[in-house]
Amino acid sequence: MLKSFLEIEQQVKDEKQRTIAVAMAEDSDILVALERARSQGLAKAILTGEKAKILSILSENQIDGKEYDIIDSAGEKESVAEAVSLVRHKKAQVLMKGLCSTSVFLKGLLDKENGLRSGKIISHLALFESPNYHKLLMMSDAAMNIAPDISEKICIIENALNAAHKIGYHNPKVAIISAVEKVNPTGIPSSADAAIIAKMADRGQIKGGIIDGPLALDNALSLQSCEIKGLKTPVGGETDICIVPNIETGNAFYKLLTILGNAKVAGIIVGAKSPVVLTSRADSEESKYLSILTALKAS
Amino acid sequence: MLKSFLEIEQQVKDEKQRTIAVAMAEDSDILVALERARSQGLAKAILTGEKAKILSILSENQIDGKEYDIIDSAGEKESVAEAVSLVRHKKAQVLMKGLCSTSVFLKGLLDKENGLRSGKIISHLALFESPNYHKLLMMSDAAMNIAPDISEKICIIENALNAAHKIGYHNPKVAIISAVEKVNPTGIPSSADAAIIAKMADRGQIKGGIIDGPLALDNALSLQSCEIKGLKTPVGGETDICIVPNIETGNAFYKLLTILGNAKVAGIIVGAKSPVVLTSRADSEESKYLSILTALKAS
Repeated sequence: MLKSFLEIEQQVKDEKQRTIAVAMAEDSDILVALERARSQGLAKAILTGEKAKILSILSENQIDGKEYDIIDSAGEKESVAEAVSLVRHKKAQVLMKGLCSTSVFLKGLLDKENGLRSGKIISHLALFESPNYHKLLMMSDAAMNIAPDISEKICIIENALNAAHKIGYHNPKVAIISAVEKVNPTGIPSSADAAIIAKMADRGQIKGGIIDGPLALDNALSLQSCEIKGLKTPVGGETDICIVPNIETGNAFYKLLTILGNAKVAGIIVGAKSPVVLTSRADSEESKYLSILTALKAS
Repeated sequence: MLKSFLEIEQQVKDEKQRTIAVAMAEDSDILVALERARSQGLAKAILTGEKAKILSILSENQIDGKEYDIIDSAGEKESVAEAVSLVRHKKAQVLMKGLCSTSVFLKGLLDKENGLRSGKIISHLALFESPNYHKLLMMSDAAMNIAPDISEKICIIENALNAAHKIGYHNPKVAIISAVEKVNPTGIPSSADAAIIAKMADRGQIKGGIIDGPLALDNALSLQSCEIKGLKTPVGGETDICIVPNIETGNAFYKLLTILGNAKVAGIIVGAKSPVVLTSRADSEESKYLSILTALKAS
């Protein structure tokens, strides 16, 4: 059980140093977040993009350009291909998106010949440190899969479990979220999907975690709420990973906890051959750093 | 603009006293919450149910039974019909569910001959006081409509606007929530629905509020997040009412804000001829009281 990002930071410090390949690194926020990781000995970075521009941004931020390998590459597509290729050839363990557009980046990541496909769908995994929960809380998928069908949901769970194992969880508790804890097979499809997936886990068809659902979020996060309802579930109040039924729920979850819940957050893409950091302009510098940290730990 | 439940409480105190009709009132939590309202002069209550049981619970809680009108009625259905009839005949302005089952209660509420139908669908409206938002925030629908189609969404908005007007808002700002603020007509149906509804509001087809969408929750709640994305919207950072696309999003919204966000919450059912208080066992006593307060103000 991990209680804070500080624990992850300490563990990454103690482990073998990894390397991050950054596609189109000419972005001030991202270089500052990378330098925060590098200067503490957490990771090295190889930057692709316009070398002169990258050096100038580094210098503007009082960062020593000599600390970075920079591969001069003109163009968005080329920079992405370079960075992806570094991970493919094991010269880096984490891939990170810089200034390039998300669609070009994902195209490079998922390229059939030269990309980092693992055969599974990719999914977004968020990791929260909330002042009101007793440990870190993971949630998927807030960003990549819009309305996953049941096979995709299972893939999302497996992606999250694989990442959680790498982060250090042995048998994390997974809550498959619906609006209710009672199965409503015809009325609420997300509750029926959750029931099917939970029973598949019982039968050993999904491994690596303690999986139950459907659960409403209060059941997942509060044992008291389970007790009031007389609900017996092995994940009640102790959930490590929430699997939400659709992107709207995930997105609201993410935004509410960060904007109104004072939570710290990291987000990574999982399901490819390496963890991927894909932050958006709206993410804080802190969140970009924590995402790098989480990807390093998950690699 | 209302900043707190305390303001609503003060306003209800200053207004003409209303009466609450409670169906099957033999529930300790509910009687305690009612007494909190009654003892401050906020409302009177007429209780239906087993009179002897009600009197005994009142007495156990040191509440003077003489302060309440009690209509002795045997049976769930009968108690609900009595309470509904009190509202129909203007002897009470608010209907509240006691110990009866939700399905029996809703059946009575929506009975075609003797119920309180207004011709619209009914919907759940939650009202939050978050320590991290500068005013009260409403949200619908977390509990009644599972996957509303576009006509139902419009109805949910109109129900919320009607309630908001009664609560004292003149032209509340309504954010139609999706996972994104860009319209993705084929990929994310909730964003397309939101765009259609927003344009209908532009055309005067929905009145009584400033309505925009699609918006992700960060756009709705934080002006800074709109600025970073260069997004211009009249509701950005100033949203009074969030309309969520499905019950899973609403339920997660509700549970996250109350469990991990330290928010106070009230919930009422709107769209019938009177506001309805329908709390669940898992709601705190505080939340039951705030729901009564909100229903009184919305009546």
